[in-house]
Amino acid sequence: MEQLEPVRVAVDVLGGDEPAQVVLDGIADALAKDPALTVLAVGPAALVEPFAAAHERAEALVAEDAIEMGDDPIRAVMTKRKSSVVVGCRAVKRGQAAGLFSAGSTGALVAAGTAYITPFKVQTDEGTRPLRPCITSPIPNRAGGFTVFCDMGGSPDVEPADLVRFAQMGAAYARTVLGVASPRVGLLSNGTEEHKGSAFTKACYPLLAEALPGFAGNCEGGDITSGAFDVVVCDGFTGNVALKATEGAAKFLMGEIKDALMGSLAGKVAALLVGRSLRSVRDRLSGDAHGGAMLLGLRGVLLIGHGATSVEAVSNGTRATAAAIRGGLVAKVAEAVPEIVS
Amino acid sequence: MEQLEPVRVAVDVLGGDEPAQVVLDGIADALAKDPALTVLAVGPAALVEPFAAAHERAEALVAEDAIEMGDDPIRAVMTKRKSSVVVGCRAVKRGQAAGLFSAGSTGALVAAGTAYITPFKVQTDEGTRPLRPCITSPIPNRAGGFTVFCDMGGSPDVEPADLVRFAQMGAAYARTVLGVASPRVGLLSNGTEEHKGSAFTKACYPLLAEALPGFAGNCEGGDITSGAFDVVVCDGFTGNVALKATEGAAKFLMGEIKDALMGSLAGKVAALLVGRSLRSVRDRLSGDAHGGAMLLGLRGVLLIGHGATSVEAVSNGTRATAAAIRGGLVAKVAEAVPEIVS
Repeated sequence: MEQLEPVRVAVDVLGGDEPAQVVLDGIADALAKDPALTVLAVGPAALVEPFAAAHERAEALVAEDAIEMGDDPIRAVMTKRKSSVVVGCRAVKRGQAAGLFSAGSTGALVAAGTAYITPFKVQTDEGTRPLRPCITSPIPNRAGGFTVFCDMGGSPDVEPADLVRFAQMGAAYARTVLGVASPRVGLLSNGTEEHKGSAFTKACYPLLAEALPGFAGNCEGGDITSGAFDVVVCDGFTGNVALKATEGAAKFLMGEIKDALMGSLAGKVAALLVGRSLRSVRDRLSGDAHGGAMLLGLRGVLLIGHGATSVEAVSNGTRATAAAIRGGLVAKVAEAVPEIVS
Repeated sequence: MEQLEPVRVAVDVLGGDEPAQVVLDGIADALAKDPALTVLAVGPAALVEPFAAAHERAEALVAEDAIEMGDDPIRAVMTKRKSSVVVGCRAVKRGQAAGLFSAGSTGALVAAGTAYITPFKVQTDEGTRPLRPCITSPIPNRAGGFTVFCDMGGSPDVEPADLVRFAQMGAAYARTVLGVASPRVGLLSNGTEEHKGSAFTKACYPLLAEALPGFAGNCEGGDITSGAFDVVVCDGFTGNVALKATEGAAKFLMGEIKDALMGSLAGKVAALLVGRSLRSVRDRLSGDAHGGAMLLGLRGVLLIGHGATSVEAVSNGTRATAAAIRGGLVAKVAEAVPEIVS
């Protein structure tokens, strides 16, 4: 049997819309499946202390406060210093854990990850400044594989040089997590021809061509799921819109297909038989296949799970965080961006 | 029986990937269904003259050249003056027909429509200039209705004032074509809260709030198909990406569902029974429900059908063009934009 490297992962017990017990059950499942995993359960003492006492390789890190979905993310991160999100990110910063998994608010996790785990610094013409982190997730594609999509909403307004770094980080993710030796990187645009694009993407194009050996030119919205590219890169505004449009189309189609099937007896039988596959298709389109979305560019692993979580999703997310740590993802992302200075 | 107003529609016989005979059959179907319709068939003499001779209310307009899908759209429109796309647009400009339906290259049709049918002029702080046209199509939504989505790719780089006019034109389309009395208009953004957005959408927000009585704030990519808004407005770059992402997700899901169904006998039977409904769902998501996408802001109706066309799609598109003419869409769009001066 393969010898697993021991790793410590922090898990936010209060993240997600489900009761904390769902998260605790997910952690227990991950611990049972990974004998070299230690989990730092971050949450209220009344929850995490009995859990740590009852489970081998589980430790408690007390955080009595929670960031709610309705909170303004940046303000909440600044003021709720005892929230599970902030305490979890600070544990990664201090080295108590090499990564955090949370199904909490994406906005709060991006803000807390940026403030506490902190991004690498890059050298620019105007001096050094923090790298803009990007949200990345592998999206299943029609070729039967996955396409790394970034930025899915971490940084809505960026410079062309930031987008080049997103592409470099996305390519590092594709190599490390998906095992793609030479990722083909597409620039998301409104047409595949080189002259297509907005003023912003036209400024990005030559920089990508110069900086990325795997740059394969412009691609279109359909290429997020076509399988023609290993990495599709865009700014965080466009990425968020495209991802939500994709999820919305999936929801619409699932509803229509359900209606179409329910109109006949054979359809009803088929719906029962294939219901599980259909739901799995939908979940995979939401980026759940690899435990959630990763905030790349930080000095530690931060994996953001879907708010509507389950025992299985928490177990997957916790183990995906461990896998990213074991794969050395943070160091490989840093190596991929030549301007990183510290 | 309702008395239909007589209208003249130009139809591009060379548009689309199918043989011209498919388009001619579609025109014949439209003529049979609409007794007050006259069609100007635009294409090579060898095709359109025998067709006009054989069909009542069909006339021939000879255009020997064609713009191919691989041609650079703007160059082709400038140099191929005898192409069916250019000849068709000039027929609308001269008043030989009140609108054109073509399943040709979207890029070429946007360029030719802008150059020959010509947009209205708007008053700006720097004087008068042509209105930026926008591509609009009703997308089916989960509420069982349609959401007008614009701009779907007509103008990738625009000013906030242009986007306000897209919203005004989209609302006029929703009132005229869909019969929505007071359309709720959403600004496509990366979150629903007012503070969310790119620098561009943040500049658009207050202008929309001031100019549009039906402005309902920010919306997300999922709202293109959620049914919570009657009109979703964005720049043409974002719109093209979101539309192609939606189509890609639909294609991906249809493939996965086909695979899931084909794995069982009941599934195979159900797939046969519901196959037609499933294909119709996909086609509707592509914006075919109303004959294609409309280029709004021009002095005539220009309806752009899908390249992968059929007899039914050409018949629908030709009759949708006639309906837009009868509904006075061009005048209603012009009334909706107060800055239009001529």
